Amino acid sequence: MTSNQVGAAPGDAGPDGRMRLSLAIRGVGYHPAAWRLPGTDPAAEQRLQHYAEVARIAERGKFDMIFFADTVAIRESALEPDTLARNSTLARIEPLMILAGVASQTSRIGLAATASTTYNTPYQIARHFGSLDLISNGRACWNLVTSWSDAEARNFGLDVNASYGDRYDRAREFVGVVTRLWNSWEDDAFLFDKQGGLFHDPAKLHTLDHEGRYYKVKGPLNVPPSPQGRPVICEAGASEAGQELAAYSADVVYAIAQTEEAAGRFYRSVKARLPKYGRSASDVKIMPGISPIVGKTEAEARAKFRALQDLIDPRLGLSLIAPYVGDLSGYPVDSPIPDVAMQGSTLETMRKLMKEIAAGRELTIRALYEHVAAGRGHWTLVGSAEYIADQLEAWFRAGVADGFNIVAAHLPGVIEDFVELVVPILQERGLFRRDYEGETLRENLGLRKPVGLVAG
Amino acid sequence: MTSNQVGAAPGDAGPDGRMRLSLAIRGVGYHPAAWRLPGTDPAAEQRLQHYAEVARIAERGKFDMIFFADTVAIRESALEPDTLARNSTLARIEPLMILAGVASQTSRIGLAATASTTYNTPYQIARHFGSLDLISNGRACWNLVTSWSDAEARNFGLDVNASYGDRYDRAREFVGVVTRLWNSWEDDAFLFDKQGGLFHDPAKLHTLDHEGRYYKVKGPLNVPPSPQGRPVICEAGASEAGQELAAYSADVVYAIAQTEEAAGRFYRSVKARLPKYGRSASDVKIMPGISPIVGKTEAEARAKFRALQDLIDPRLGLSLIAPYVGDLSGYPVDSPIPDVAMQGSTLETMRKLMKEIAAGRELTIRALYEHVAAGRGHWTLVGSAEYIADQLEAWFRAGVADGFNIVAAHLPGVIEDFVELVVPILQERGLFRRDYEGETLRENLGLRKPVGLVAG
Repeated sequence: MTSNQVGAAPGDAGPDGRMRLSLAIRGVGYHPAAWRLPGTDPAAEQRLQHYAEVARIAERGKFDMIFFADTVAIRESALEPDTLARNSTLARIEPLMILAGVASQTSRIGLAATASTTYNTPYQIARHFGSLDLISNGRACWNLVTSWSDAEARNFGLDVNASYGDRYDRAREFVGVVTRLWNSWEDDAFLFDKQGGLFHDPAKLHTLDHEGRYYKVKGPLNVPPSPQGRPVICEAGASEAGQELAAYSADVVYAIAQTEEAAGRFYRSVKARLPKYGRSASDVKIMPGISPIVGKTEAEARAKFRALQDLIDPRLGLSLIAPYVGDLSGYPVDSPIPDVAMQGSTLETMRKLMKEIAAGRELTIRALYEHVAAGRGHWTLVGSAEYIADQLEAWFRAGVADGFNIVAAHLPGVIEDFVELVVPILQERGLFRRDYEGETLRENLGLRKPVGLVAG
Repeated sequence: MTSNQVGAAPGDAGPDGRMRLSLAIRGVGYHPAAWRLPGTDPAAEQRLQHYAEVARIAERGKFDMIFFADTVAIRESALEPDTLARNSTLARIEPLMILAGVASQTSRIGLAATASTTYNTPYQIARHFGSLDLISNGRACWNLVTSWSDAEARNFGLDVNASYGDRYDRAREFVGVVTRLWNSWEDDAFLFDKQGGLFHDPAKLHTLDHEGRYYKVKGPLNVPPSPQGRPVICEAGASEAGQELAAYSADVVYAIAQTEEAAGRFYRSVKARLPKYGRSASDVKIMPGISPIVGKTEAEARAKFRALQDLIDPRLGLSLIAPYVGDLSGYPVDSPIPDVAMQGSTLETMRKLMKEIAAGRELTIRALYEHVAAGRGHWTLVGSAEYIADQLEAWFRAGVADGFNIVAAHLPGVIEDFVELVVPILQERGLFRRDYEGETLRENLGLRKPVGLVAG
């Protein structure tokens, strides 16, 4: 797409050797105290215009995409009166609706929404994302999740969620069906021949007739084909099953890593799985999440960060870590995390992560909840724009990341700072685009237009 | 909302005694030859901007709402190669996505999308329409359908659709769950108290804990409350079960009637059912569909209509009536409809309708398909603006309609003509608003803000 190649082409970042950037949006920020910052309007999380403004800033910064996580329930721990009182973003606008609204207020930036394979049907997912793709001229992305919480199950007639393996088996069949539904109409199926009275070429419509283990879907899809071949698919599963599903079906993989070594392990593990599905390393972009707090100086960044951390109500802090370490409200918040809590941790990823953090220093209860609050498990980078650009460049050149997902602690502040201060440095170093290369998200990500169906 | 009362307050049209207007949109028009008209771009049906333009014209004309029908399948008869080649709007953008896109390009007009209770879950419907309501500042409307076709069933793992009674039983429970999910958060549940760190008032959140015959949904909904109390609900079922469901749960009822007498029967039948659900006649607006072709003179209107009818390919015409009368391709199109076809008709409403039409004159195959094509079963009005205004006024003053759903044969032509030529006459006569009375759809429809839950 561009002839302005940079010298190094690290990792599998694609033909232009540049990093990709995504912005993860949650209300007025992922940090649980973001809504309490001076100058922030907490009600903005319920208004489309807030999201449109944030998207336009990211687009000014030539970001590849904005991204919305999602769940189809309020977590049960968040419903405890003490936590409920203090938590923002429990009630929010559904991401597909936000993105359909943002589509006509932006022109180039990709639009990624999360939707569950456990609590949706393939036909409806294919319709919704196929439609978002049309109204955005080829900028839609589906972040496929399988959903893990019992709270979600209970909103859909079940008492507990499906078992782990079952969810991933179903998801694999699900994404195959969705992909093939998106291929119902060939690009040139529409003749629009007014004189001859011919609207379609019947030979260019394909009926699915899928009968699998979990799904039976006849098709065809009643939505026109995608301007980008098919919507981009994102995934984020870190587990063995999650990585395998990603290698089979994802275009973009979000990752969680606190160290370059951990990022590298995950990166290589996913890329190594691709050949078995007939895919090459450049077909999948791996983007670890980072939570940057940028200042004009390091001191300014640290002061910003401290101001945010100081606004965390300890009762809310304890609730943030309770899913992983249990109820620690009986301990002083400045005491070390008791061993018993670490053993009780249920979520594998989180437990490993906490061990990594704890290895270097003593981990108090407050330090843990501040850490989780800051990056929601992602790598938190606090410093000058140069420092942050250096860190991103290091991971990128080391070949452990094809780009990064900016998990914004507060909005629009974080994206304003990043676009104003960090992006120009990345551009100056030839690491990031100065303008969009293509029209569609797929083109901008440097991904080939898919031909035919997902393998398998 | 207005003190400018008109003399007569017929029917149950609400405190201002004015008629309501809705615009039904399907691609570049309901007429199957609309896409072939000179000046029409057939590809417009796949573009958001076409719908935004049509919505803005209707808003300029102070219409209450725009409305999209929907199905989650392409009808099997439409997939026959001959029909497929000649039919438009088989592949289209999903209505919720269109309306989320149109929301930020309009400010007052209501936004109604169809969604099925058979092929969706209550939690997702509550989320999607609750979210559309938020991003449109209280203009969302859910057109509840139960879905009847086997083609739809086959896209969702079933061979045939659920039985009639079962679908309506489920729908009744479904709409109750959705309504109560929309009441999860009280309007003043959000404190936004930055100083005290209190985001919510926990006492203002209500968990559903629904366990019914068909659905088990814990709740609460993770979407903030609606600016209009809850989204408006439309329905269109003409059957006994459909009318009963409408009396229980609808704010707006779309109707099909070819004569004032038939309109009156339906109108009285629905309104008579309301008291048993604790509702009054003015709580439900009944709006028959009409398909107007407006000219500056009657001759001009007739010429426009004839030009459109002449563009119907006979093979497409036969396919339009085949679901009701079977395959008549063995008969000359200008011969009368054979008796055997009338007896074979499966859809009760359609059969009655055809008998009504046929009573006055000989009904040929061509005349039937032209009739169905023109209004898709709705009352077709071809004439001058004065004539059309007279007809609407007559039904409205007779108390057989609270307003009308304009089923546009071609777009944007029909809505341009109606807004330019008919609306000013209705305004002049005091029958229709000169400006919107309220901010939300519910206010503009003259409906009370709902308090509490659907009865039952």
